[in-house]
Amino acid sequence: MIIVMEKTATVENIQGVIDILTEHGFRAILHKGDVHTVIDALGDKTTLSPNRLEAMEGVNYVRLIRQPFRLASRDRKPEDTVIEFENGVKVGGESRPVFIAGPCSVENDYGCLLEVAQAAKELGCQFLRGGAFKPRTSPYDFDGLGEKALKYLAKAKEETGLLVVTELMDSSDLKMVCDYADVIQIGARNMQNFRLLKSVGKCNKPIILKRGPASSVQEFLLAAEHIMYNGNEKVILCERGIKSFDHTFTRNVLDISAIPVIKKLSHLPIIVDPSHGTGQRYLIEPMSKAGLAAGADGVMVEVHPNPAKALSDGKQSLSIEQFKEVFSRLNNMIDLLHLDKKQPALKGE
Amino acid sequence: MIIVMEKTATVENIQGVIDILTEHGFRAILHKGDVHTVIDALGDKTTLSPNRLEAMEGVNYVRLIRQPFRLASRDRKPEDTVIEFENGVKVGGESRPVFIAGPCSVENDYGCLLEVAQAAKELGCQFLRGGAFKPRTSPYDFDGLGEKALKYLAKAKEETGLLVVTELMDSSDLKMVCDYADVIQIGARNMQNFRLLKSVGKCNKPIILKRGPASSVQEFLLAAEHIMYNGNEKVILCERGIKSFDHTFTRNVLDISAIPVIKKLSHLPIIVDPSHGTGQRYLIEPMSKAGLAAGADGVMVEVHPNPAKALSDGKQSLSIEQFKEVFSRLNNMIDLLHLDKKQPALKGE
Amino acid sequence: MIIVMEKTATVENIQGVIDILTEHGFRAILHKGDVHTVIDALGDKTTLSPNRLEAMEGVNYVRLIRQPFRLASRDRKPEDTVIEFENGVKVGGESRPVFIAGPCSVENDYGCLLEVAQAAKELGCQFLRGGAFKPRTSPYDFDGLGEKALKYLAKAKEETGLLVVTELMDSSDLKMVCDYADVIQIGARNMQNFRLLKSVGKCNKPIILKRGPASSVQEFLLAAEHIMYNGNEKVILCERGIKSFDHTFTRNVLDISAIPVIKKLSHLPIIVDPSHGTGQRYLIEPMSKAGLAAGADGVMVEVHPNPAKALSDGKQSLSIEQFKEVFSRLNNMIDLLHLDKKQPALKGE
Amino acid sequence: MIIVMEKTATVENIQGVIDILTEHGFRAILHKGDVHTVIDALGDKTTLSPNRLEAMEGVNYVRLIRQPFRLASRDRKPEDTVIEFENGVKVGGESRPVFIAGPCSVENDYGCLLEVAQAAKELGCQFLRGGAFKPRTSPYDFDGLGEKALKYLAKAKEETGLLVVTELMDSSDLKMVCDYADVIQIGARNMQNFRLLKSVGKCNKPIILKRGPASSVQEFLLAAEHIMYNGNEKVILCERGIKSFDHTFTRNVLDISAIPVIKKLSHLPIIVDPSHGTGQRYLIEPMSKAGLAAGADGVMVEVHPNPAKALSDGKQSLSIEQFKEVFSRLNNMIDLLHLDKKQPALKGE
Repeated sequence: MIIVMEKTATVENIQGVIDILTEHGFRAILHKGDVHTVIDALGDKTTLSPNRLEAMEGVNYVRLIRQPFRLASRDRKPEDTVIEFENGVKVGGESRPVFIAGPCSVENDYGCLLEVAQAAKELGCQFLRGGAFKPRTSPYDFDGLGEKALKYLAKAKEETGLLVVTELMDSSDLKMVCDYADVIQIGARNMQNFRLLKSVGKCNKPIILKRGPASSVQEFLLAAEHIMYNGNEKVILCERGIKSFDHTFTRNVLDISAIPVIKKLSHLPIIVDPSHGTGQRYLIEPMSKAGLAAGADGVMVEVHPNPAKALSDGKQSLSIEQFKEVFSRLNNMIDLLHLDKKQPALKGE
Repeated sequence: MIIVMEKTATVENIQGVIDILTEHGFRAILHKGDVHTVIDALGDKTTLSPNRLEAMEGVNYVRLIRQPFRLASRDRKPEDTVIEFENGVKVGGESRPVFIAGPCSVENDYGCLLEVAQAAKELGCQFLRGGAFKPRTSPYDFDGLGEKALKYLAKAKEETGLLVVTELMDSSDLKMVCDYADVIQIGARNMQNFRLLKSVGKCNKPIILKRGPASSVQEFLLAAEHIMYNGNEKVILCERGIKSFDHTFTRNVLDISAIPVIKKLSHLPIIVDPSHGTGQRYLIEPMSKAGLAAGADGVMVEVHPNPAKALSDGKQSLSIEQFKEVFSRLNNMIDLLHLDKKQPALKGE
Repeated sequence: MIIVMEKTATVENIQGVIDILTEHGFRAILHKGDVHTVIDALGDKTTLSPNRLEAMEGVNYVRLIRQPFRLASRDRKPEDTVIEFENGVKVGGESRPVFIAGPCSVENDYGCLLEVAQAAKELGCQFLRGGAFKPRTSPYDFDGLGEKALKYLAKAKEETGLLVVTELMDSSDLKMVCDYADVIQIGARNMQNFRLLKSVGKCNKPIILKRGPASSVQEFLLAAEHIMYNGNEKVILCERGIKSFDHTFTRNVLDISAIPVIKKLSHLPIIVDPSHGTGQRYLIEPMSKAGLAAGADGVMVEVHPNPAKALSDGKQSLSIEQFKEVFSRLNNMIDLLHLDKKQPALKGE
Repeated sequence: MIIVMEKTATVENIQGVIDILTEHGFRAILHKGDVHTVIDALGDKTTLSPNRLEAMEGVNYVRLIRQPFRLASRDRKPEDTVIEFENGVKVGGESRPVFIAGPCSVENDYGCLLEVAQAAKELGCQFLRGGAFKPRTSPYDFDGLGEKALKYLAKAKEETGLLVVTELMDSSDLKMVCDYADVIQIGARNMQNFRLLKSVGKCNKPIILKRGPASSVQEFLLAAEHIMYNGNEKVILCERGIKSFDHTFTRNVLDISAIPVIKKLSHLPIIVDPSHGTGQRYLIEPMSKAGLAAGADGVMVEVHPNPAKALSDGKQSLSIEQFKEVFSRLNNMIDLLHLDKKQPALKGE
């Protein structure tokens, strides 16, 4: 840490900072500038929070030099994390990008879910997604079928062999969701629901952690850190769009640059969700391509046999026929560009 | 609702929309423009989600005319909601703005909490705040003492008569928190934790609901709607700053205009939290004044006997002595401006 | 336009709106709902501003149905605009994506510029960029060599045949810049400098218009409309990143989705600038790929023989050697994906 | 400056940084941490740009310790700048907050302008505002009467004694505008039109500089620095709202906290514009109060004899009658709170 003192800091203020640093095992090195005094603190930040230093009299601000996440950091683990499933599917590293497809919510008609699952399977997708518990901005919207939906998903898995991804909204449902799902999703609005992070940190299923719509990359990686810190290192990050000043034509701004940024900072896999990221069906194809071109380890897409009748997110869902078209073009692009992964990337920075 | 069709919408597309509207009890009125066809839908939106219409073929977009929140809306209840406590304290309406003061987290030293509580009581504050469960961006930060903290708060209440405000992070703690607290706080990062909203909607304590750092006013009021819809109408809103592109000198941008905007849209009381809203001790006074001048029903301030030693949020906490100074100036301002509440405000809009 | 009246609007208020609409040649259709009255106005918006209607008593808000830009709109001109230069280079439509490379600012050492130009030429770039006039946030930073730089650019053009792109900051320099440049760039911070837009609207050089860092897509297209309205339809749009709440790891968020969104709304070509869009050298390659995959008509990259000595933007510039590497990989990707342009894209929406 | 090196920086990289620092007269102090090497650079930043250092190989990032603005900084000039006009009106420091009122644009009917001016004069306002040149997002909107409007303003000044504030959009109009105006306004969208800043830096009229809708406080003060650096220190800052993710109920978010933040960082006066800041007539009163309570040196309000007929910004303009009501309540509040200015504010930070 670097502690920059106020211009008006007294000798006592400075000594106060040095004392607390020493007390916590830091080595403090003092530099008196013409205007500001700066203290270099070498040691283990986990033992002393920069916030506490910032609150001391005479301290202007504190800068961290190391990133505050540790388990998620590439510094700790330079090689890519690859998450492998029983059926051999792999996510991350040099593996071929995966596809996660399915309706936003699982609805009453099982045939509907099965139709999507079968199409996804035939095309070569690896995962079936579907919401059993849905976070809804308004209490008047459909919020999911609960365990019935989980059962439908499990049945569709049985019939197709696809792995099941579904969202967990409350730790009290953890056991139930684990009974049916292969991957547990933490939704964007729960990215900083720390109790929920803690609870999935204690289970042994891989987690898809969606980026909060107003979360910085650092907050996103710290949320992953919460899960990892509690014991579960199988975290797949998912970029799904951030809030901006402009939502006339898209619901969110899909932050494609977060993909290579996170690849540099962390060893965790990261996938992209162009359905939520844009909220527009016609943007799924170009934004999937953009995400894959930038290095994403997978794509999550909403597919519904009849988007116009979907109980949620119909506007951003592809019909099965549309999905087939889009999928074949994305697949083709992966074939062409996948080679790149083995090519050396630009060194530097 | 107004449904604007695509330029390319077919006669079948248009009929499809009219059919679904009629089926759900809406009256549909069709207008063919030179470029676009527009359908007016008169009826009860709760029976048919605009999202579902937006997903239909040929639909460009759907505009709502009424606000999507209902219980929270001033249209339903034109008079201000006033929340009254057993000891006669009132929040909202024409009541004098209230003060909620206390440390960010309750810490190990009970004397410390009591000292703040006693000072707050002497000055004339109505509420003591203190975190027992703390949401922390990093898993390496102090996250609260749990039930021990709740016991400390209850003890301080016994000694001072102040009402206790504390945050609930998970529905599994609800009963415990209710045993000790007079008001339950839902933190900003949990504003869209819909399970938590549902659970506090079923208890009978007043709730302080903090605005999420990237939540629109509409999402904020819909979160209140979740609580009210589940049975608890005693919701106090709290503006605590939103994320912006600039965080060099403040942690968030305290959205003062949200106060008069919400006063116009809703009957619920709204208070302001300048400590989290700015993250800077020296901004607490001017931003409290700004909030009160704009119509806030109360102010929530972090106070700590020794901010430099606070385990959380020291930089934005006032010392007891500073709080005394600030409080006396705010109180003076309330005396002077309180009269305004009874003066007629500008009509129109 | 759809005019939604206040709940409290009087009969006179409503008549007032109908009168003004009729007076301006609109057909007004009245719908009385249970709560709100809505007026449909069919006619030509250019004759009556929605702002004027919004200011009338009893009006709640006005919604436009058509986009406010016209000349830039794909509704007016469904086929892509292709801008063709004397030497046969084309930008837009089915043309191969172009490359614009060069240093942020032209500096004193001509050899330096020539070196970049020659490398760019050899690789197959079409344009040389370089700033003669530099907008600088701080008055203490280097702000360009002025006409001397323009002369250097012209000389480098003579030696390599590359087309020259340079920024115009003030209409008083227009003639001078036109004497040397093939394409005039309007910088992001001048996107809404309407006098400047007007002046370049009256010249006959193609314009690269950069998106303002906080401009919506609609404001961006309206800025293009200003140029086109003044007579110059040769506008190339350039996405270069928008401001967000997070700038820890990137300077801006490159809004890749703006590319397919604008392709849908407008017939104008759009290129991408990953150097300014991210501010990080290592992100140029993945974000160029993302932009191209999403449909960009070109890429603009900062290249400097010695980024560490660049007088501006060194951190986001590639060295010549790095550029060669990156360029060859991008070029390879264009070869592979260019075919896609002729493949049918997903219909719908 | 503090230069934080990459983990992978070589001895040569480090020496390179030290060499360039020494060459530019800095004292470089080296600290080798376990992970990162950090270099303290003591010296005058104007001689060496941090951007140049950031571009060097092995450099991770550079942190400034001093603010990059100097002339605008309170460090350089601890006492408030007070701008005094010939007629004795003062802006800034301990002076009573001033009022600037008038229509958005000056329109064809002079009587209309005079009516506003006379009302403003009678109430006790000091300034008349009115646009002669209007920046318009769309080329189809009314963009001002030009010199005719300036003549009207001068005439209204003659009849009322009010000082005239009007916007300059292009340096080519500077002489003309100076002939008629007492204060020149630089609009929000021109805040980083550096040529325009330079030109008004060379005139001797006071300048009102409006904050760009996406400009940070630092960029805002650096824009003022441009004017001051060119010779004109009479700059009045104006907070007028920033862009956020939410514009359902307000056009912008009026950043009230910018007022006390800027008061701390700079000696320049700062006023508040609630008309543009919110875009809503009913918010003018509460947000003017909030601004004044937070320490603003003045308020700028749009007033029009018939807002419903205004050619621009009618929705956010007060009628004369409404202005009288609002003004009297604001004036009353100033009387009550003005005393505060002489009371000691909270020390610290």
